[in-house]
Amino acid sequence: MLPSFILRRLSRPFSLLQVHGRRLFSSISISVPLSHPIYIVWAANTGLGKTLVSAGLASSVLSPASQPSEFQYIKPVQTGFPSDSDSRFVFNKVFDIFRRRRVAGTSLIASNHVLKASPAAAREVVGWYEEKTVEGEVSEECSGSRRRLNCTTLCAWKEAVSPHLAVEREAGGVEDEQLLGMVQSCLWKEGGDKEKAELWTVIETAGGVASPGPSGTLQCDLYRPFRIPAVLVGDGRLGGISGTVSAYESLKLRGYDVVAVVLEDRGLGNDGSLLSYVQNSIPVLVLPPIPEDQSDDLMVWFDESHNLFDSLKRILQSAFSERVQRLHDLPKKAGELLWWPFTQHQLVPQANVTVIDSRCGEKFAIHKVQAHDDVIVQLFDGCASWWTQGPNATLQIELARDMGYAAARYGHVMFPENVYEPALRCAELLLDGVGKGWASRTFFSDNGSTAIEIALKMAFRKFWCDHEAILSISNQKPLEFRVLALTGSYHGDTLGAMEAQAPSSYTGFLQQPWYIGRGLFVDPPTVYMHCGRWNLLLPDALHSEKHELEDLCKNIANICAAFAFRDELFSESRDASTISTRYSSYISKQLSTYSGGPQNKWIAALIIEPGKNILGYLFPFLIHGAGGMHMVDPLFQRVLVKECRNRKIPVVFDEVFTGFWRLGVESAAELLHCLPDIACFAKLMTGGMVPLAATLATEAVFQSFVGDSKLKALLHGHSYSAHAVGCTAAVRSIMSFKDPKKNPNLPPEGRVLRELWDHEVVQKISLHPQVKRVVVQGTLFVLELEAEGSNAGYASVYARSLLLQLREDGIFARPLGNVIYLMCGPCTPPCVCSQLLTKLYERIDEFHKNRTVQL
Amino acid sequence: MLPSFILRRLSRPFSLLQVHGRRLFSSISISVPLSHPIYIVWAANTGLGKTLVSAGLASSVLSPASQPSEFQYIKPVQTGFPSDSDSRFVFNKVFDIFRRRRVAGTSLIASNHVLKASPAAAREVVGWYEEKTVEGEVSEECSGSRRRLNCTTLCAWKEAVSPHLAVEREAGGVEDEQLLGMVQSCLWKEGGDKEKAELWTVIETAGGVASPGPSGTLQCDLYRPFRIPAVLVGDGRLGGISGTVSAYESLKLRGYDVVAVVLEDRGLGNDGSLLSYVQNSIPVLVLPPIPEDQSDDLMVWFDESHNLFDSLKRILQSAFSERVQRLHDLPKKAGELLWWPFTQHQLVPQANVTVIDSRCGEKFAIHKVQAHDDVIVQLFDGCASWWTQGPNATLQIELARDMGYAAARYGHVMFPENVYEPALRCAELLLDGVGKGWASRTFFSDNGSTAIEIALKMAFRKFWCDHEAILSISNQKPLEFRVLALTGSYHGDTLGAMEAQAPSSYTGFLQQPWYIGRGLFVDPPTVYMHCGRWNLLLPDALHSEKHELEDLCKNIANICAAFAFRDELFSESRDASTISTRYSSYISKQLSTYSGGPQNKWIAALIIEPGKNILGYLFPFLIHGAGGMHMVDPLFQRVLVKECRNRKIPVVFDEVFTGFWRLGVESAAELLHCLPDIACFAKLMTGGMVPLAATLATEAVFQSFVGDSKLKALLHGHSYSAHAVGCTAAVRSIMSFKDPKKNPNLPPEGRVLRELWDHEVVQKISLHPQVKRVVVQGTLFVLELEAEGSNAGYASVYARSLLLQLREDGIFARPLGNVIYLMCGPCTPPCVCSQLLTKLYERIDEFHKNRTVQL
Repeated sequence: MLPSFILRRLSRPFSLLQVHGRRLFSSISISVPLSHPIYIVWAANTGLGKTLVSAGLASSVLSPASQPSEFQYIKPVQTGFPSDSDSRFVFNKVFDIFRRRRVAGTSLIASNHVLKASPAAAREVVGWYEEKTVEGEVSEECSGSRRRLNCTTLCAWKEAVSPHLAVEREAGGVEDEQLLGMVQSCLWKEGGDKEKAELWTVIETAGGVASPGPSGTLQCDLYRPFRIPAVLVGDGRLGGISGTVSAYESLKLRGYDVVAVVLEDRGLGNDGSLLSYVQNSIPVLVLPPIPEDQSDDLMVWFDESHNLFDSLKRILQSAFSERVQRLHDLPKKAGELLWWPFTQHQLVPQANVTVIDSRCGEKFAIHKVQAHDDVIVQLFDGCASWWTQGPNATLQIELARDMGYAAARYGHVMFPENVYEPALRCAELLLDGVGKGWASRTFFSDNGSTAIEIALKMAFRKFWCDHEAILSISNQKPLEFRVLALTGSYHGDTLGAMEAQAPSSYTGFLQQPWYIGRGLFVDPPTVYMHCGRWNLLLPDALHSEKHELEDLCKNIANICAAFAFRDELFSESRDASTISTRYSSYISKQLSTYSGGPQNKWIAALIIEPGKNILGYLFPFLIHGAGGMHMVDPLFQRVLVKECRNRKIPVVFDEVFTGFWRLGVESAAELLHCLPDIACFAKLMTGGMVPLAATLATEAVFQSFVGDSKLKALLHGHSYSAHAVGCTAAVRSIMSFKDPKKNPNLPPEGRVLRELWDHEVVQKISLHPQVKRVVVQGTLFVLELEAEGSNAGYASVYARSLLLQLREDGIFARPLGNVIYLMCGPCTPPCVCSQLLTKLYERIDEFHKNRTVQL
Repeated sequence: MLPSFILRRLSRPFSLLQVHGRRLFSSISISVPLSHPIYIVWAANTGLGKTLVSAGLASSVLSPASQPSEFQYIKPVQTGFPSDSDSRFVFNKVFDIFRRRRVAGTSLIASNHVLKASPAAAREVVGWYEEKTVEGEVSEECSGSRRRLNCTTLCAWKEAVSPHLAVEREAGGVEDEQLLGMVQSCLWKEGGDKEKAELWTVIETAGGVASPGPSGTLQCDLYRPFRIPAVLVGDGRLGGISGTVSAYESLKLRGYDVVAVVLEDRGLGNDGSLLSYVQNSIPVLVLPPIPEDQSDDLMVWFDESHNLFDSLKRILQSAFSERVQRLHDLPKKAGELLWWPFTQHQLVPQANVTVIDSRCGEKFAIHKVQAHDDVIVQLFDGCASWWTQGPNATLQIELARDMGYAAARYGHVMFPENVYEPALRCAELLLDGVGKGWASRTFFSDNGSTAIEIALKMAFRKFWCDHEAILSISNQKPLEFRVLALTGSYHGDTLGAMEAQAPSSYTGFLQQPWYIGRGLFVDPPTVYMHCGRWNLLLPDALHSEKHELEDLCKNIANICAAFAFRDELFSESRDASTISTRYSSYISKQLSTYSGGPQNKWIAALIIEPGKNILGYLFPFLIHGAGGMHMVDPLFQRVLVKECRNRKIPVVFDEVFTGFWRLGVESAAELLHCLPDIACFAKLMTGGMVPLAATLATEAVFQSFVGDSKLKALLHGHSYSAHAVGCTAAVRSIMSFKDPKKNPNLPPEGRVLRELWDHEVVQKISLHPQVKRVVVQGTLFVLELEAEGSNAGYASVYARSLLLQLREDGIFARPLGNVIYLMCGPCTPPCVCSQLLTKLYERIDEFHKNRTVQL
C-alpha cells in the first residue's frame, strides 16, 4: 500500500505543527507575528492572475531600492501539480526579473520547496528543493547586498481540480488543522528584530475566495483563524464586476479586511465600478492586459506593471504600519476615552488592557506586545464574553450571514401591532422550547435587566388580580409590594431589578441613592463539591434550627457523597424527605411576615435563578465573608416555588444567565422539575451576538393585562423591541444549539448536554489542597482557591498570577479575587474542556508549590 | 439629433410607469402582486445559462399537464441586441419545444416584444413585436386548451458589454426608477382571479448578481425594492463553487430569499459542495451538460432536462404557496403568541395587524390582503420605526454588510478592561461629535432607559462629591436625592428612568407599584405654531405671575410672528430679555424647596430633553387635558441649565430621541446653546438597526468615580456593553449622516440639515381650520387636529380614518388620538417630505369636509 501522503523532509527550518514559542492546546493555537507584513492573496475566481500579483509584488519588495531583504511566498494548496506550480512560477519569474534588472552589488538567492504531495503528484516531482542565485557585481560603491526569495508549496495534488476533489480522487487528505499548522510554522521566522523587519510574507490561496480546501472547508473559512489582511485579485472581464463585488462581500462576511483590489485591464473599466462600490475606501489597482500567448515570458508585462506593483507594495506596507500603530495606540486611547462597566479605572494600568483583534468561535485573537515581536495570538475565551457566548466558528459565520440578511431585509421595523417573520419565528421557538408546557406569550426587550423589570410588572399585576378583593380593603398604611428573593442573587443594574436584590456593595447610597431593597431576602442552603463529594451548607437563618437538622444534613451529605455527582441533588425523590418539610416550614414562617397585616406589605412575587446562584461565585464579595461560592440547594428552590404557588404568589424564573444550555439543559427549569409563571431570557439567546431579551408568561398572566382600556395594558416598551437582527440571530442560535446534527454535545433525541468537564479531572481538582470548593454544571466550571485574610474575597489579587500563567497557556480568564471560573459554549468539544481543566490543574499545582515554598 | 432612446408603442397592455391600482408618490411606489408566482433569475456570473433555465422553466410551466396557462418572461436589460436577445431565445425555444412535444388539443400562442432600444440597437431591430402559434389538433376527447407565452425585452443596447457601459457608449440611459416602473407594470395583469392564478412570471437579470444596471447601480441593489424570491443559476465549472457561494451571499446581504440553485453538470460535483454549504436548506439542481456546439438546437438537451425543470417548477410553486400561506397566517399567530409593548391586545383585531415583509430605506413593504389579489406594497414608514430609523436604501445595505463583517470578526467580545476597534472608534466619534467641547468619556449600554439610569447614577455621585461636606452633616431625616424634571417628559420604562418622570398613567400602582416619583416636576412654558405663527403658552404654575408676564408674552409672540419661523425661539439673544429673568426667579423658587433643610431632600440632578418635549406630542394623555402638543420654550431650558449649574447640580441631557439629527442638528444641545455634564444617546445612533446606547460624561463626572477601591467605581453594566455589531453600525451611521458627500441634506461644512418640510405647505397646514397646532423641527412634523370631547386625547379614534386613508397614499403612520406625526430620516429628500405633507394636507381637507357635511 502506498503511503497516502509523501512528506519531504527539508533542511530549511520549516517543521510541521511546531509552533514557535507557543504551546498547542486542543486544536492548533493560532499566532500570527506582527513583526513584518503578511498578506493573503485571494481572487474572485480561478485564473485571474493571483500568481502574477504575487510575483510582481515579490519583485517590487525585493527590488534594490526597497527595504526588505527577504520575501516569502507560500502556496498552501496546489493542484495540477507539478505541471502547475505557482510557487515554482514565482520562483522562476522573480529570478528572471531580477536577472533582467540586475543592479550592481545586489544578489538574489531564490529557492523553491515542496513539502507534501499526494502519491500521484509525488511520482512526478523532479526536485523537492531547488535554489538558484543571481550574483550582483560587487563594485567599490556597493558593499554588496543579499536578497532572498523563499517559495514554498505546502501540499500538492496532481489533478487540476478543486483540492477537495483531488483528495477524493488521489488521496493525500490533509486536515484543516494540519494545514493551518503548516502555514503557521511558515509565518514564524527565527532571528533578530532586524531580520524580521526585513521580511515580507505572502500566502496565495487556490481558486476563488470560497473554493473548497482539501477537507472541503471553504478556504475563506479555513484560513479565518489567522484573519490575515487580504489582497483581492478582481476580475476585469465581462461580468467581472459582479464576481469581484461578491468575492469582496464573502471576505467581509468572514471578518477579513481587504486592503487592496487588483485587477487586469480588459478595456471594460471594471475598476471604476468597483471604486464606486467601495466608495473609494480602498484602492483599486489596474494591471496591464496579460498576454494570452502562453509562450510569452511576461518580462515586458512585468516591466509595464513595475510601477503598479511598487504602488501596491507601498499601500500594503503603509496599511501594515498603520495597523500595528493602531494596535499599539488602542490601550492608551481606551484608558482615555472609555468608561468600562464595573471597573475601577485607577486599578487598570495601560499594560493590563487587552486589545482584542477578533474572535473566532470560542476564541479571542488578542494583540500581545512581546519583547521580541508583537503577535496576534488566540486565547480560549474562558469568560464566554461575559457569559453571553455560545457559537463555534462555523455557527458564528452562519450568524453573521443571517444577521447581514436580516439587516438588509428589515433593518428594524416597529413592533407593536405589527408582525414580521423573525419576531414571530423567535416567539414560536421560545414558546416551543424554554417556555414549553407553560408559557403562551413572549414579550421582547433588550437585556436581562429590562426583562426582569417587565417580569416584575407582570407578576405584580397578576398578584393584584388574584388578590384584588383583599388588597382593596382600606388600610391605614399604603399598600406595599415586595418580592421574595434569595440573598446574594443578582438580577441586573436598573433600579427595578436592583430592588429585587439584597443590599450589597452595589446598592449602597453612593452607587444608587434610590435603592430601598424591596424584598424579603432569604439566605438559602447551598451545596458545593469538595474532595470529590457534594456538601450541603445551611445558612445562618436556619442556625436556630440547626440542632434538629444536624442529623438530616449528615444524611444528605452521605447521599451526595454516595452518588459522587450532583445529579442526586436535583432528584425529585428528595421532595419526600424530612428536610423538604423543614424547608417548607422555614419558608412559610418567612412569608407570614409579609402577608398584609397592619403593615400592608405583601410578597407579590418570587424571583429565583433556577439551578444556580451564580453571582455568589462570580462576585463573592456580595456574600458575607469568603463563603460565597455556593450553588443553591435545588430542593430549596423547588420548595420555594411550591410554597409561593400555594399562596398564589407569581413565580419568576430569572433564566437570563441559565437559559439556553448554560447549565446543560435548554431551560434550567428542567433541573428544578417545576415551572414558573414568568421567565426571563437574554444573553445566550442570540448566540452571544447582540442584545435581545424575552420575558415569557403564562396565558393567565397575560390575561391580567387584557381589558377594554389601553391603560390596563402593559405600558412598557423599548424602541428596538423584537428587533429583526436580534430575533434572526436568536432563531438560528436556538435551533442550532438544540439540533443534535449541529451540536455534537447533544445525543440524538437528547435534552441534556453530555458532561463537558472530565469527571476525573474535576475530582482531582476538588481534591487538591489549594482548592476549597468546586462547582461544575453544564458549560460552567468554578472553583475557589483556599485563601486566608486579604487573599480571600473579591478585592484580593491572589489569583492574578495564576490567571496570567493561564494566558500563556492560551486561556483567557478573569481574576475575581480567589475565584476562578471557566465557561465554554454549548457546542464546545469536551476534549477542549478537558484540556482547559488539565492546564488549570497544572497551574494550580504550580501556584500551590510556589506558595508552599514561600511559606 | 437622434432621440436618446426609442420607445416602441405596443398594442399589448404594458404601459410605462402606469402602476395599476396604485398611486405613485415621490419615486415609484412599489407593489408586487401575490396572485401568482413571480421569480427573478440571477446568476453567479455571465454565460451560465440563465436563459436556458428560464426557457426550460417556461416549457415545464406551460406543459399540457400543468395548471398555469400563461408564462410571462421579462428581460429588463439586454445588451448585444438584437443579435443577442434572451427574450427572443426563450420565445423561439419554448415554441420549438412545444411544437416538438405537441399534444392533442393544446395550442400555444407565443409572442416577443421589445419596448425600448438605444438608437444604435433600434436601427437593427427587424420586428418590435412578433407572434407565432402552434395549433393543437382538437379531437373529440380534448376540448382544446390555449396557452400563452409572452416574452418582453424592456430596454436594449447594441454593444455586448455591461449595461452601464453600453449607456455610456451609445446613450439610451434609463433611470433606476423608470426601469423599476417598467418592470412593475409588467407584474400587474388585468383580469379576474382565475386568470391571474394561471400566470407565472419570470424576470431574468443580466450578467451576475452584482453586475451594474444601466445607471451603474448594481442589479442586486436595483431590484431590491421588489425583493422577489430568487432562483440562482450557479457555476458548474472549475472555480464555480466559489462564485456561486459568493453570489448567494451577495443576494442574502441584500435581503433576498434564494429558493433554488440550479447549475450545469461539468463533472466536478460542485452541487455537493453547494448543498453542504447551504446545509441542505435549499435544493441544488443539476442540469445536464450544455452542448458547446453553437449549431445545436438544444432540443435533445431540453428533453434531457425535462424532469429537472418539472422539479424546479414544483419547488417554486410550493415555495410560492407556502409564502402566501405564511403571510396569511402571521396576523393570527401574532395575536396568539406575541405580547406587544404599550398595546391593549383586546383593541387590536386580527385584521388590524400589519404584516411587514421587509423594509427598504425609509419604506416598509407590507402584505396587504385585497378583494381581488394579495399584494406586497411599499409604504413610507412615517413612524421611522419607533423613532429609531434613519438610513436610506443605500446606507441600509452598507450597514448590513458592516454588521455582517462585525459579527464575523468579533461576534461579541467582553468589554471591561478590553478594547477593540469598533467600541473605541464609536467612542471617538461620539466624543468628537455629540460630545464635542464637553464630554471626555463614553459609557455604553443597551437602550435609552439604561443610559438614563446610568446618567442618574453618575449625576448623583457627582452631586455627592461636590456637596459632600454639607450632605454629611447628620440630619434626623435620611438623605434623599431628587431630580429636577419637566412635567410630561419621558425617559424610559425601567424603574430608575420612570422615577425621573412626573406621575402619569404609566406610573400608577397597577403599572408599577414601586413608582414613587422622585422628582421636582416643573410645568414648562411651551411653544407651538398656529396659523403660521409661533405662540408661547405659559403653564398653570406661572399663572400666579400671569398678570406681570402678559405684556412680555405678547412681545415674544410678536417677535416669533415677525420671524415666522421658530429659529428666533432658539436665539441666544433672548437671554437678555425680561422673561429670561422671570424664568430664573421662578426656577429659583422651585429649587429652594429641595435644597436640604430639615426634610434633607436635595435636587441632585437636572434632566431635560433639549429642544423638545416630544412625549407631549406622542402620548398626549400624559399632559392634562388635550393641550399636550407643545414644544418646551428653549429659553426656559437654557435658564434651567444655568440655574442648576450655578448650584452645582449636574445637568443631564436626554438625547435618546433628539440625538443624531432627529431635530436637524447632530446634538440638540446645539439648539439650546448650552452644554450638559452628562448626556444620553441611543435610537438613531446605530442608524436604527440594533439597540445600543451611550452615556457621555465630562471628565469631572468620571473623576468622581475614580479612587483606590473598586467599590468607588460605577458598578453598573450590561453583558452586551459596547457590542461590536452595534458599535460598527453606529460608526457607519454617525459618519454617513454627518458627511455632506453622503447626506445630500447637509450643505458642505454644514452643521444643520436643510429644512426638510416645505415651508409653504407647513404654513398652509397650520392655517387649516381642522388643525389646532403644528410643530416642525428637523426630521419631525407633528400636528394636532382640532377636536372636542372624546375626540380629543390619546384614547380617541378620531384620526384613525384619516390615517387609513394615508395608507392608501403609501404613508404608514400611527393613530395617536387626535395627534398625527410624520418622521423621516436625516437623508430623506425634501421632495419626499413635501409629497408626504401634500398628501396629508389633502386628507385633512377631505376629513374636514366630511365632518363639516356630517355636522
